Amino acid sequence: MDKTLIFGHKNPDTDTICSALAYADLKNKLGFDAEPARLGSVSKETQFALDYFSVDAPQFIEKVDEDVKNVILVDHNEFQQSVENIKDVRITEVIDHHRISNFETKEPLYFRAEPVGCTATILNKMYKENGVAVTKDIAGLLLSAIISDSLLLKSPTCTKVDVEAAYELAEIAGVNLETYGFEMLQAGADLSDKSVLDLITMDAKEFSMGDAKVEIAQVNAIDTKKIYQFQTDLETEIAQIIKDKNLDLFLFVVTDILNNDSEVLALGEAKDNVNKAFNVTLDDNNRALLKGVVSRKKQIVTNLTEEFTK
Amino acid sequence: MDKTLIFGHKNPDTDTICSALAYADLKNKLGFDAEPARLGSVSKETQFALDYFSVDAPQFIEKVDEDVKNVILVDHNEFQQSVENIKDVRITEVIDHHRISNFETKEPLYFRAEPVGCTATILNKMYKENGVAVTKDIAGLLLSAIISDSLLLKSPTCTKVDVEAAYELAEIAGVNLETYGFEMLQAGADLSDKSVLDLITMDAKEFSMGDAKVEIAQVNAIDTKKIYQFQTDLETEIAQIIKDKNLDLFLFVVTDILNNDSEVLALGEAKDNVNKAFNVTLDDNNRALLKGVVSRKKQIVTNLTEEFTK
Repeated sequence: MDKTLIFGHKNPDTDTICSALAYADLKNKLGFDAEPARLGSVSKETQFALDYFSVDAPQFIEKVDEDVKNVILVDHNEFQQSVENIKDVRITEVIDHHRISNFETKEPLYFRAEPVGCTATILNKMYKENGVAVTKDIAGLLLSAIISDSLLLKSPTCTKVDVEAAYELAEIAGVNLETYGFEMLQAGADLSDKSVLDLITMDAKEFSMGDAKVEIAQVNAIDTKKIYQFQTDLETEIAQIIKDKNLDLFLFVVTDILNNDSEVLALGEAKDNVNKAFNVTLDDNNRALLKGVVSRKKQIVTNLTEEFTK
Repeated sequence: MDKTLIFGHKNPDTDTICSALAYADLKNKLGFDAEPARLGSVSKETQFALDYFSVDAPQFIEKVDEDVKNVILVDHNEFQQSVENIKDVRITEVIDHHRISNFETKEPLYFRAEPVGCTATILNKMYKENGVAVTKDIAGLLLSAIISDSLLLKSPTCTKVDVEAAYELAEIAGVNLETYGFEMLQAGADLSDKSVLDLITMDAKEFSMGDAKVEIAQVNAIDTKKIYQFQTDLETEIAQIIKDKNLDLFLFVVTDILNNDSEVLALGEAKDNVNKAFNVTLDDNNRALLKGVVSRKKQIVTNLTEEFTK
């Protein structure tokens, strides 16, 4: 049988890594030859979850090998967020919870996107639909993904279905949702060993908005001030990325996981669109506090896209 | 509650009309305010099904009214096949069985595409998943859609799931699948009152293939020769469409529903791609017989796209 490779987006977050692992597990249990993979390094947050539930990280791939016939995308569909040679492979399935954009296939496929907070929530449903029991380690991974994407169920992207799945999975995984969740987020918010370049690339995604190219990087932090101590260095590195990728806007989002706000730094010719999109005024340092904004997908991409396509 | 409009593609076929009707029925039974609509006139084949099961055709719309907040697309996703102002509306769901192309949203949505022969097959599943019984008239519509899209279960697009759904629905609808199916296809293949322009527009779809614009029109017929009696007129009308829409290729596909072959007429600057895609040679009349080819989606669009994107 042809091997199928399952992977999430570049700069993988916990949902992307855990969903690839879980969906490969489900596919294998259903008799398919599937292997999980990742397109980047594992974050501290994700590593905490993998260690806690004793699961190995998926293999790192730079591109899809020629002998791989089919791929399944989880947690993303926009080609610029996917593997380099995505246009040369046959995509047989997509399981996702994002907007759909810059995605196309020659042939019909199984495409399942649901407006829930996390890909893992959809996978939890799919285990049930297929009558396959979720084991303790997989429950731990799916739970970690939900906690990560929903910032411990506090993000506006989090739906009733995510909350129900989280409590159900916490029980199978044998952990207390709040205690485990906060420990995991804290592990991810430890940025002490990160370089300035790490901060702006570790969870960066590129988007097409109208005719504009926009990159949005996000980090979770306990103390946002600590990060902006390095503002001059941040700006230098971001300016270089804008130049290299010919971006119209780079938005660096530092999310305060205790207060659930984000302090953003906006650079690029289209930075004024940040003011209009969020009804704020960037200060002299090109920064603004976005009160109550924690979700890149629901609160940032949506508002910015609207502004860029006006 | 906000009203949701549900519709299929332009130049509606039986799957598009019946799926819009059925999904609106399911949504209403689940407590949502949904209304079916159509983007073009009802074909004889579809009218036969509607008459047989005493169901009214959905309302015709030219564009989505401003007071409609949400729309659901069935049986298509490519914007050029949809309503004129598709980019101005909020798409909350898509239920489809085609390739995905030229589709994008600002926000996450429920997108369900499955590689089956017919949208109605997916809807039949969704009735079950939601614990809603399919009534006799809806069963008749869903069955008609499957028969139409699968040419009475003979098309290569037809899967095991479609076949099972068809027999199940025939029982609920209280008809013999083969007898009813052949009568319905025959009604559709009666082209006696069609003008030449009707023939090339009644089931035409436009596709982007690489940088090329391709339109493919298909009609079912009992006797393909009868249609090509009017070849000169067909060519004149097609040439005008190519000019108006700036097409690279117009492919007119006459499908013989008794022998399950198609005789095609290819016009436009890129007509040589038809030879390469199907390993045939267009004759002096720009025509070729494609043996065993009945499915636009699986046998024609796939091969042509490959040729155009080489």
